[in-house]
Amino acid sequence: MKVSELGEFGVIERLAQLLAAEGSAARDDRLYAGIGDDGAVWLQKDGALLATTDTLVEGVHFVAGKTSWRDLGWKALAVNVSDIAAMGGEPELALVTLLLRDNTDVEDLDELYRGMTEAADAMDIVIAGGDIVRAQEFAISVTATGRAGLDHAKQPKLLRRSAAQAGDVIAVTGTLGGAAGGLAVVQGKQADDRAAQALRERHFRPRPRVDAGHAAVAAHVRCGIDLSDGLMQDLGHICRSSGLGAIVWQDKLPIDDALRATFGEMEAVQLAATGGEDYELLVTGTREQIDVMAGQSNVPITVIGEMVASERHTARLLDGSGKPMELPAAGWDHLRGS
Amino acid sequence: MKVSELGEFGVIERLAQLLAAEGSAARDDRLYAGIGDDGAVWLQKDGALLATTDTLVEGVHFVAGKTSWRDLGWKALAVNVSDIAAMGGEPELALVTLLLRDNTDVEDLDELYRGMTEAADAMDIVIAGGDIVRAQEFAISVTATGRAGLDHAKQPKLLRRSAAQAGDVIAVTGTLGGAAGGLAVVQGKQADDRAAQALRERHFRPRPRVDAGHAAVAAHVRCGIDLSDGLMQDLGHICRSSGLGAIVWQDKLPIDDALRATFGEMEAVQLAATGGEDYELLVTGTREQIDVMAGQSNVPITVIGEMVASERHTARLLDGSGKPMELPAAGWDHLRGS
Repeated sequence: MKVSELGEFGVIERLAQLLAAEGSAARDDRLYAGIGDDGAVWLQKDGALLATTDTLVEGVHFVAGKTSWRDLGWKALAVNVSDIAAMGGEPELALVTLLLRDNTDVEDLDELYRGMTEAADAMDIVIAGGDIVRAQEFAISVTATGRAGLDHAKQPKLLRRSAAQAGDVIAVTGTLGGAAGGLAVVQGKQADDRAAQALRERHFRPRPRVDAGHAAVAAHVRCGIDLSDGLMQDLGHICRSSGLGAIVWQDKLPIDDALRATFGEMEAVQLAATGGEDYELLVTGTREQIDVMAGQSNVPITVIGEMVASERHTARLLDGSGKPMELPAAGWDHLRGS
Repeated sequence: MKVSELGEFGVIERLAQLLAAEGSAARDDRLYAGIGDDGAVWLQKDGALLATTDTLVEGVHFVAGKTSWRDLGWKALAVNVSDIAAMGGEPELALVTLLLRDNTDVEDLDELYRGMTEAADAMDIVIAGGDIVRAQEFAISVTATGRAGLDHAKQPKLLRRSAAQAGDVIAVTGTLGGAAGGLAVVQGKQADDRAAQALRERHFRPRPRVDAGHAAVAAHVRCGIDLSDGLMQDLGHICRSSGLGAIVWQDKLPIDDALRATFGEMEAVQLAATGGEDYELLVTGTREQIDVMAGQSNVPITVIGEMVASERHTARLLDGSGKPMELPAAGWDHLRGS
C-alpha cells in the first residue's frame, strides 16, 4: 500500500499506534497531550510547555509566483502561532527550517525573512534558530513553542479538542470564509477593489487569535481548536475527540461584507462552512463562559451552534428551517490531495 | 545572487542580521542563546528550555536504497538529541515532520517509525507530535527540546561554543572517524566482516553522548560542541565563537581498531580529523575539570589538544614532531555542496 492511499490521518494514526504499542517513552507521565492533539503538552513544575509544528511545501501549500515570499514568511509563522492560540497558550519560541533550492535568489530569501520578522513581532514570538538544507523543492517548516499556566490542581489551563460537553454552545472568533474567498480572488474570481484587497489579506496574512485564546482560558472555557481545514471539518475533530455530535445554524455564521458582496449569500455560506485557513478560533463552553470570554476578547465572538449527545460523532449544518444542508468537499487531505 | 553562492552559514548569518536590525522580539531578555548556537536557550523560572532542529533530505543527507528506513528513523532522532547533548541538557520532546512522496510504501514508513521509536526509547526522548506533508522528495525534520538547570546566579548550566578559555585542554568522547569510515565501507571500501560491521554501525546508528554532556556540566565544564561536520571544522566553530586558536595533537586522536585496520594509520588519522557525523562530544576546560568529567562519564574521554591565545581563530593539527599537517576538504557545506 502507498501512503497516498492511507491518507494524512492514517499515516499519523499509524505512528501513534506504534508508539503506544512499542515505545516506552510515550508513556512518560509528563506528556499531557501528544500525537493527535493540536500540539504537544509537556508538564513542568510551574507550567506546561506547548509545542507544535507545521510545514508549507511549494506546489502543495502554495504556488510559487502566486504567493509573495514575504507573505509566505508571515504565513509560515502564523499557522504555527495559531496552534498555540488554539490551546490558549502564550507563544514563546519559533525554530524555522528552510529547504532551499540552489537557484533561490538571495533577494527572495531576504523578503521571506522580512515576512517572518514582521510576523514574529506582530505575534510576539521569538525566532530563536532553525536549520537550512538544500532540496529540489522549496519548503518552510516551523516549530513553535508556548506556555500555559497550571490550575490549583497542577493541571494545565488549556483548550483541548476533547473537552466539549453535551449542551455546550459553539462559538467562533471573527468572521469565516474570508481566506478561501481570498484564494478564489487570487485564482481569478472577480471582485471590487476594496473587497478583493480585504479577502486577499485574509488569505495571505492570517492573524492568529492568541488574545482570544487567553480570554477563553481565563473564562474557564476548556475546549477549542483553530480553523485551518474549514469549520465543519475542524468541528468534526472536536466531535470525534469529545464523543459528541454538533449542530451549526447556517444563519448564525459570521460572514463579512466583502465575502457576501463578492460571492453572494449561498456561496458565501459554503465558503464560511467549509473554506480552510481562516485561523479563527472555535471554542465550546457554557453560555455563561462564552459571554465572559466575549467580554474580554479583542475580536467579536459569535455563537453558531451547540454540542449534542449523539451516536454519530459528526457536525451538521442546519438551514433557517432546521433542515440539514448539503455541502461540497469535506476538507483537504494533504496526502490524498483531495 | 543565488543561495548556492552564499552558502549555508551565509544564509543563516543573513537572517541573524535582519533579526538583530529589525526584529524587536529578538531582543527578548529570556532568549539566552539563539541563531548561531547549537540550539536555542530560553530562560524560564526554574530552568532553561533548549530547542534545536535538524533535517535530513533524500539525495542530500542520505541516498535512498543505501540507508534503510529503520536506520534513517534512528538517525533523524539521534542528530537532534546530539545537539541537546552538546549543550549538556536533558532531552525531553521530539516533534517529527515527514515530507512524504505519494508513492512511499506504507511498509517503509512502518520501518521508519520503528527506527524512530527505537531511538526515542534508547535516548529517553518522547515523540510528542509532528506534521505530515506531501512532497516530491522525501525529508524528515525533527525538532527536539530539552532542559538545563540553573546555577545559584540563575544562569543556565550549559555547554556553549563561546565559553573556551586560553589554556583549556580539549577533550573528546569515544573514538573519531568511525562514521566516515562506515560511509566509505557502504560506498564499497573493502573491510573484514567484523570491522565493516563496527564501522557501518557508527555510520548508521550514532549514539548521542547525553550522559557525557551531563558529566561535563556537573564537572563545571562550560564549553562544548557535538562533532557533526568533522573534528577540525567543529573545533573551528569553537575557535571563532571563543576568539581563540586551537592545536590538536595528531598522535592523541582516539581511533578505534576497526578504522585503523581498514584504512591504515595515515588515512585513519585523516578520517578522525575531518570525517563527519561521529556525534561524539568535544569539550574544553581545565585539566582538573576534564579529569572530574572523565571520572563520571560512561564513555572514554581523551585529551587531544589545547586552546591557545591567537590572532587566527582556527584549529591546527600537529604531527608527532609538532609540524602542522595538511588536511583535505575542510568539511561540508550543505548549500554549496562541497
